[in-house]
Amino acid sequence: MNAKIGTFNFEVESSSCDFNGQLPLPYLFNLLLKASEKHADERHFGYNDLSKQNKAWVLSRMGMYMNKYPGYDTVIRIQTWVANIERFFTRRCFRISTADDTEIGYAQTLWAAIDLETRKPCNINELGSTINDYLGAEMDFPEKKLGKIAAINNQPVLLHKPAYSDIDINGHFNSARYIERILDLFDIEQFKEKSVREFEIQYLAEALPESRLSFHLQKNDKEYFTAEIKDHQKDISTCRAAVLFG
Amino acid sequence: MNAKIGTFNFEVESSSCDFNGQLPLPYLFNLLLKASEKHADERHFGYNDLSKQNKAWVLSRMGMYMNKYPGYDTVIRIQTWVANIERFFTRRCFRISTADDTEIGYAQTLWAAIDLETRKPCNINELGSTINDYLGAEMDFPEKKLGKIAAINNQPVLLHKPAYSDIDINGHFNSARYIERILDLFDIEQFKEKSVREFEIQYLAEALPESRLSFHLQKNDKEYFTAEIKDHQKDISTCRAAVLFG
Repeated sequence: MNAKIGTFNFEVESSSCDFNGQLPLPYLFNLLLKASEKHADERHFGYNDLSKQNKAWVLSRMGMYMNKYPGYDTVIRIQTWVANIERFFTRRCFRISTADDTEIGYAQTLWAAIDLETRKPCNINELGSTINDYLGAEMDFPEKKLGKIAAINNQPVLLHKPAYSDIDINGHFNSARYIERILDLFDIEQFKEKSVREFEIQYLAEALPESRLSFHLQKNDKEYFTAEIKDHQKDISTCRAAVLFG
Repeated sequence: MNAKIGTFNFEVESSSCDFNGQLPLPYLFNLLLKASEKHADERHFGYNDLSKQNKAWVLSRMGMYMNKYPGYDTVIRIQTWVANIERFFTRRCFRISTADDTEIGYAQTLWAAIDLETRKPCNINELGSTINDYLGAEMDFPEKKLGKIAAINNQPVLLHKPAYSDIDINGHFNSARYIERILDLFDIEQFKEKSVREFEIQYLAEALPESRLSFHLQKNDKEYFTAEIKDHQKDISTCRAAVLFG
């Protein structure tokens, strides 16, 4: 037992699986969030701890790198640890494996701690949080950098008014639902032949129930796409994603 | 412990909740399905048992009657039992309560057992299944009948091509996703002021990835709506629903 690393098991229920009998990426992303929340709560630097200072963790970027997807009626193991702190951001990593410890993928997330009054990011080193006690986990992680994703300037493939099921408990467009709606831009045939090998997303601005969104998709290469969701009334980008099939 | 009644507890996670901090109806419906599956499996008349005869349970109708919705970070209790068998259908009931046994709602489902080769329903009494051993649970249930829902003949409010996330492990449009997509037809404001008090759905035909669907909505009364999803190429109805707000 390494206190720096949290290990969490989850059952993969067939009711959550896609037509390939595998857990889709947005569901897996939700499990990563659950593992993060538990890991941070158990070590007293979670949402509840930060909210006492009127601050909150906000997800800024995420990348998932999958060799294989978990199948139905199996158990998956998610190991998570805080990799480092760089002033305004902390990087959390994940190793995803089957119950017998066969590695199937990795993920990383970049989090900011924002002041709920000013909505501005805080210097994480000055939070006085216990997070600093858990740095330095000795875990391998693939050489993957969460780079910036370029803006897209083409016609939207979809105009979307947020629906009841899009909005989360905080009144914002749900971060997992963004991913689901981006994958739903692709023809369903794409998922019969290929799987998403890499998915990166940058969350840039909050979308609200009254936001009017446009979805943009660009093919950069045979298997490499970028997507962008814009608030077309405010003319700002709410998120950008990069999707690599293989 | 009454062997006829199965009791299952579920945690209500904030990541699943709507902007009211409550578990939305489609999520709750998924928990009812999980409770059904566990109850039937434990008593040896579940999916796996039926599949040995090349038969499968198919959900035909469902009704949920909610006084209150479960809030985040709580535990809910679902009790389920088989109410009766009427030749081609079996009726399963549910009582939904908080962890301290405060009743918040009821639900009922009507299931057929179909032969996977002929796709025709079987006489459930002739299945030789253990289901008959579990009839006669002594539980109260409100006077609610799963009646037929009338067809709608107006212009569609939405045309929809099934997306990757709509299709379940069996290659069909997901039964919970139908409910989610029907509730998403309503303006988001509706859920700020009111809750869904009653929701009934009749599943009439399977929709496939290649189906082309039209969504229809009809206001019958101030708070009472009916919805219908049609395969507009085949000119058949895939499901009809009735929604009562309050």
